[in-house]
Amino acid sequence: MNIIAILGSLRKASFNRMLLNAAIELAPAEMSIEIADISQFPLYNQDVENTGAPDAVKRLQEQIRSADGVLFVTPEYNYSMSGVLKNAIDWASRPPKENPFNGKPCAMMSASTSVLGGARAQYHLRQSCVFINLIPMNKPEVIVMKAMEKFDADSKLIDEATRKVVATFMQSFKEWIIRIGK
Amino acid sequence: MNIIAILGSLRKASFNRMLLNAAIELAPAEMSIEIADISQFPLYNQDVENTGAPDAVKRLQEQIRSADGVLFVTPEYNYSMSGVLKNAIDWASRPPKENPFNGKPCAMMSASTSVLGGARAQYHLRQSCVFINLIPMNKPEVIVMKAMEKFDADSKLIDEATRKVVATFMQSFKEWIIRIGK
Amino acid sequence: MNIIAILGSLRKASFNRMLLNAAIELAPAEMSIEIADISQFPLYNQDVENTGAPDAVKRLQEQIRSADGVLFVTPEYNYSMSGVLKNAIDWASRPPKENPFNGKPCAMMSASTSVLGGARAQYHLRQSCVFINLIPMNKPEVIVMKAMEKFDADSKLIDEATRKVVATFMQSFKEWIIRIGK
Amino acid sequence: MNIIAILGSLRKASFNRMLLNAAIELAPAEMSIEIADISQFPLYNQDVENTGAPDAVKRLQEQIRSADGVLFVTPEYNYSMSGVLKNAIDWASRPPKENPFNGKPCAMMSASTSVLGGARAQYHLRQSCVFINLIPMNKPEVIVMKAMEKFDADSKLIDEATRKVVATFMQSFKEWIIRIGK
Repeated sequence: MNIIAILGSLRKASFNRMLLNAAIELAPAEMSIEIADISQFPLYNQDVENTGAPDAVKRLQEQIRSADGVLFVTPEYNYSMSGVLKNAIDWASRPPKENPFNGKPCAMMSASTSVLGGARAQYHLRQSCVFINLIPMNKPEVIVMKAMEKFDADSKLIDEATRKVVATFMQSFKEWIIRIGK
Repeated sequence: MNIIAILGSLRKASFNRMLLNAAIELAPAEMSIEIADISQFPLYNQDVENTGAPDAVKRLQEQIRSADGVLFVTPEYNYSMSGVLKNAIDWASRPPKENPFNGKPCAMMSASTSVLGGARAQYHLRQSCVFINLIPMNKPEVIVMKAMEKFDADSKLIDEATRKVVATFMQSFKEWIIRIGK
Repeated sequence: MNIIAILGSLRKASFNRMLLNAAIELAPAEMSIEIADISQFPLYNQDVENTGAPDAVKRLQEQIRSADGVLFVTPEYNYSMSGVLKNAIDWASRPPKENPFNGKPCAMMSASTSVLGGARAQYHLRQSCVFINLIPMNKPEVIVMKAMEKFDADSKLIDEATRKVVATFMQSFKEWIIRIGK
Repeated sequence: MNIIAILGSLRKASFNRMLLNAAIELAPAEMSIEIADISQFPLYNQDVENTGAPDAVKRLQEQIRSADGVLFVTPEYNYSMSGVLKNAIDWASRPPKENPFNGKPCAMMSASTSVLGGARAQYHLRQSCVFINLIPMNKPEVIVMKAMEKFDADSKLIDEATRKVVATFMQSFKEWIIRIGK
């Protein structure tokens, strides 16, 4: 079971990156999770697209195409998903080939130092899923609040309750992928 | 009355760009509208920010700071605002100085070749406004549908009904800026 | 295949009612569609719930429980779903038994005399689906604009393009129910 | 300065009611706050409206018309505002006279036993404000989480940090009303 993970923060010490690493650690054994490299994406521009998408974009499109599911990990910036993540989705969803997201199962997580933990970003992302026809898992929702209290100095998720919900989330995602199939 | 306009599409022949040009043409005489150049913004990355924001970002922050109002013109990509626009907002809202949007009046328009005209992008943008404390005008909403039928080969807005609503929108925006003040 | 349809308008000559009737007419033969009666629901009040839910609510809960899928038909009032529909969902999702929506496939349609056709209501309803764990079909979206031009004096859907998309929608809903199963 | 408060929960021991009472207690002296009675509203039905709106609706419309601002206090049910509140808005916004909300300042609060405190309800309510042309205050946002820990057995708000934010909120609302004027 191949998962492509798309991380909406480029910061090295991002809590969302730490959360993604925890998800990889806690995932069921049969899941293989690859992290997309979206750091080299230019800003989306249809004029550029018309002369051929950048290689980094084509690479992500192929990764999505060959994945059984898509895992989003997104910070919440300004009460929505990050522009970084949205830009990656805007590029990846474009021609020349069919939208690679089409019909695939997905799931999403977020971490934040605030008390709302990124929830608002997720509902915007869910609306984008309607258009690109990703099928998002509903539950459990992983919204890690006050993230600075949940990870240790080695970037490891140490909060036991959060570890448990992330493990359940990944197990549920496995079952969701099987259920949705393709 | 100084307006900074932020355009969420980088495409040269963008209908949103044409719409912005029409808005400039139809604006009340006392409005001076400058278009931000966000094409050189890197993807937002806090590690980069910590070493100093790029000059293009600092420039936009200053433009917003000295503006009386902010005018967004955004395409709708994947049922939300463009990643390009969101990335510009993510950068502009950041330190070292106070969030430059804070307390300013704003308005938003969109154009699309689809029948929904970009409406979904606008409601997401409005949610971001809550956080960055921009005060969006409610009405009239400018949502230009089937844009390919509204502009001519010289990129000029020729649809009379749309010209009228854009003129009313700009007049209302002027009154909104006066009402909201700062 | 049993479908429970929940209609968010109580008006007799509602375009959403006409649209639901068209959906019933155009549905695949194996679908049996029952229309919930939510007209007698009181306003939701937990104090009332604690003394026992009204019979009309219990009836809907049982209808949902025995259905293979849920079909929402909602007007857009004030840029969201109708209070009438939301109130029905608020009641139906409550104890004493488990939330009857849990894990079921759903789909949604709307009609409106406006040009946006109720789209904004649907994205709010989709957010409620996350909590009550309904699994909404993404596509096709049925958003019937300028409804007064699409139905005849006998309340029959006569616009051929709309008839076609409604038929495709119901066929897709059938396939969605099979795919999601339970 | 007259405020009409609309409470989205009908439950006697509602945390949102307690929050509203705290807001009244902590409001600036010059604010007079009346609580609307929406408990007798029927479900919205245009056929009923056409024979004349119920007296309770007409009363609310007059209260809104003579108010300087509108204060919403809403629970979050199923990741949106309550059907009870939405139904009240749907009725109040209707003819025969002009929409009474038109152009008035508003503010919103919510309380919840959950960790997200009703935030999701507020962003949906803000979208409705665009249509009915209410002008919502952005900040501070009052989102009272884990409400059962914040009020005492006499329904009094005892959490000091929350009391402070509610007092600031009401003071800011006063300033917002003066700023927006009408």
